[in-house]
Amino acid sequence: MREGAQQIRIGVYGGGVCTDEIYEKARKVGKLLASRGAVVYCGGLGGVMKAVSQGVSEENGTVVGILPGRDSRTANPYTSIPVATGTGNARNTMIANSVHGAIAIDGQYGTLSEIALTLGQNKSVVGLHTWGIKGVVGVKSPEEAVSRILELI
Amino acid sequence: MREGAQQIRIGVYGGGVCTDEIYEKARKVGKLLASRGAVVYCGGLGGVMKAVSQGVSEENGTVVGILPGRDSRTANPYTSIPVATGTGNARNTMIANSVHGAIAIDGQYGTLSEIALTLGQNKSVVGLHTWGIKGVVGVKSPEEAVSRILELI
Amino acid sequence: MREGAQQIRIGVYGGGVCTDEIYEKARKVGKLLASRGAVVYCGGLGGVMKAVSQGVSEENGTVVGILPGRDSRTANPYTSIPVATGTGNARNTMIANSVHGAIAIDGQYGTLSEIALTLGQNKSVVGLHTWGIKGVVGVKSPEEAVSRILELI
Amino acid sequence: MREGAQQIRIGVYGGGVCTDEIYEKARKVGKLLASRGAVVYCGGLGGVMKAVSQGVSEENGTVVGILPGRDSRTANPYTSIPVATGTGNARNTMIANSVHGAIAIDGQYGTLSEIALTLGQNKSVVGLHTWGIKGVVGVKSPEEAVSRILELI
Repeated sequence: MREGAQQIRIGVYGGGVCTDEIYEKARKVGKLLASRGAVVYCGGLGGVMKAVSQGVSEENGTVVGILPGRDSRTANPYTSIPVATGTGNARNTMIANSVHGAIAIDGQYGTLSEIALTLGQNKSVVGLHTWGIKGVVGVKSPEEAVSRILELI
Repeated sequence: MREGAQQIRIGVYGGGVCTDEIYEKARKVGKLLASRGAVVYCGGLGGVMKAVSQGVSEENGTVVGILPGRDSRTANPYTSIPVATGTGNARNTMIANSVHGAIAIDGQYGTLSEIALTLGQNKSVVGLHTWGIKGVVGVKSPEEAVSRILELI
Repeated sequence: MREGAQQIRIGVYGGGVCTDEIYEKARKVGKLLASRGAVVYCGGLGGVMKAVSQGVSEENGTVVGILPGRDSRTANPYTSIPVATGTGNARNTMIANSVHGAIAIDGQYGTLSEIALTLGQNKSVVGLHTWGIKGVVGVKSPEEAVSRILELI
Repeated sequence: MREGAQQIRIGVYGGGVCTDEIYEKARKVGKLLASRGAVVYCGGLGGVMKAVSQGVSEENGTVVGILPGRDSRTANPYTSIPVATGTGNARNTMIANSVHGAIAIDGQYGTLSEIALTLGQNKSVVGLHTWGIKGVVGVKSPEEAVSRILELI
């Protein structure tokens, strides 16, 4: 009997558009999380979401794409499990609900809302090149992001 | 690179309480779907949802539990991927959005809402001992339910 | 001090497209509900939703449009209070949650889901030319629909 | 025919618990908004939400309570129009969707998420004793908060 529900689940937050440098860092975060056995939850679209999904995929991990739209085909191609919520940014709450902690990378106001919703549940958020909000644990590299969040949860 | 988003995704709908006979049929549906390679989406709780999750688990398949509550620990123990939507019955829409088709087994009004939301998206619903709504394809056994839905999608 | 939260709140369900005959009946339902002091909740779009909103407006009542989209400008012009949920059909649950009872008029699968979600909360549903589901109280006229639902809640 | 959908709609954000000083400021914001003819949207619960609702009520205005829970009776007693979303903090997105702009008063992470979701839609947010996020227009009094948001939208 699998014990899926007991696996570690980490959210990765970030914008739908990003630079190549951020993309590579997010991809590295995905690779490291998957290699540590964590299931990754993200928003399922492009930019940082696609990058982390690609990283997870390259390590044969599982990445859940909690999509804003109602069509699963809007998921990036690296998504293992699409969930087409059809609820727009209300889906940000659902990611925060589902994870043990999160890593935020870069991002704009959508990412800020995800950070706030996660901290509001007393769950840890590690930040890499992102909003310097009270409660976010700032880090300087993908390696540090992954090791810190796995310590904190 | 996995192609998770292209896997077949089947919803299984049914009540949170059921008889032993229905439980065994739902569990059989889960086993058959997993053995055919489908990812199963359900509401993640007890009764038919637990039964189908157990069946999927016994075949080492993947079952996504789209939960009404905001705490992943409310998922039944066979759930591979919990999604704690925190949206109550609004999560029924999210299951319907995410799947290619569905099997409804037994159930009350919650199941009826799921059937309606799925048919309303022009997706097929196969029914086993459930509501005789226009559009539902009635079947008599778990084997027939699984073979019919895989033909129809 | 107003006691808005204690006012009677009635949902009116029905399709986004309807015949002229159904339109006039839904408009009459709106007029009668408003004249009896009920606040009407509907899906805020066209067809039966627009008709009932027009009827309420003609009696200077209040009609709340619980919209599927995230833009309030999608509400029909008779809407008093638009709520742009941005959650698609998941908004059907929110209407059912918010009302004391409901009248269903005509409609397809979306209406059926609303009926099911309302009955599932043990709230009364009166049906006019709509789905003959167990639990729906069938009536033959707008007048009977309004008098029956106000008795039942 | 009323033109409700064309009325100005202002969100007021803030925590479910607050000091007496904040309560009086939020109540004043409610009174001023109502006296200017704006419909107020808030989260419908206690603290700043109750205070602003009380202020609106005292001016015979309309205040919409977009509730996290699925029971309308959880609304504070000054609520004109309860909407029981049953979606927890996902309802924050629905308030942001529905308004032309917002005033944030005090608050913790829930308020921060509302600010972020509103700014992310390119809608103005005025802040009174709240988060100093990029994009928030800081003000020093209820009077300034109301006059500024009505200028900005």
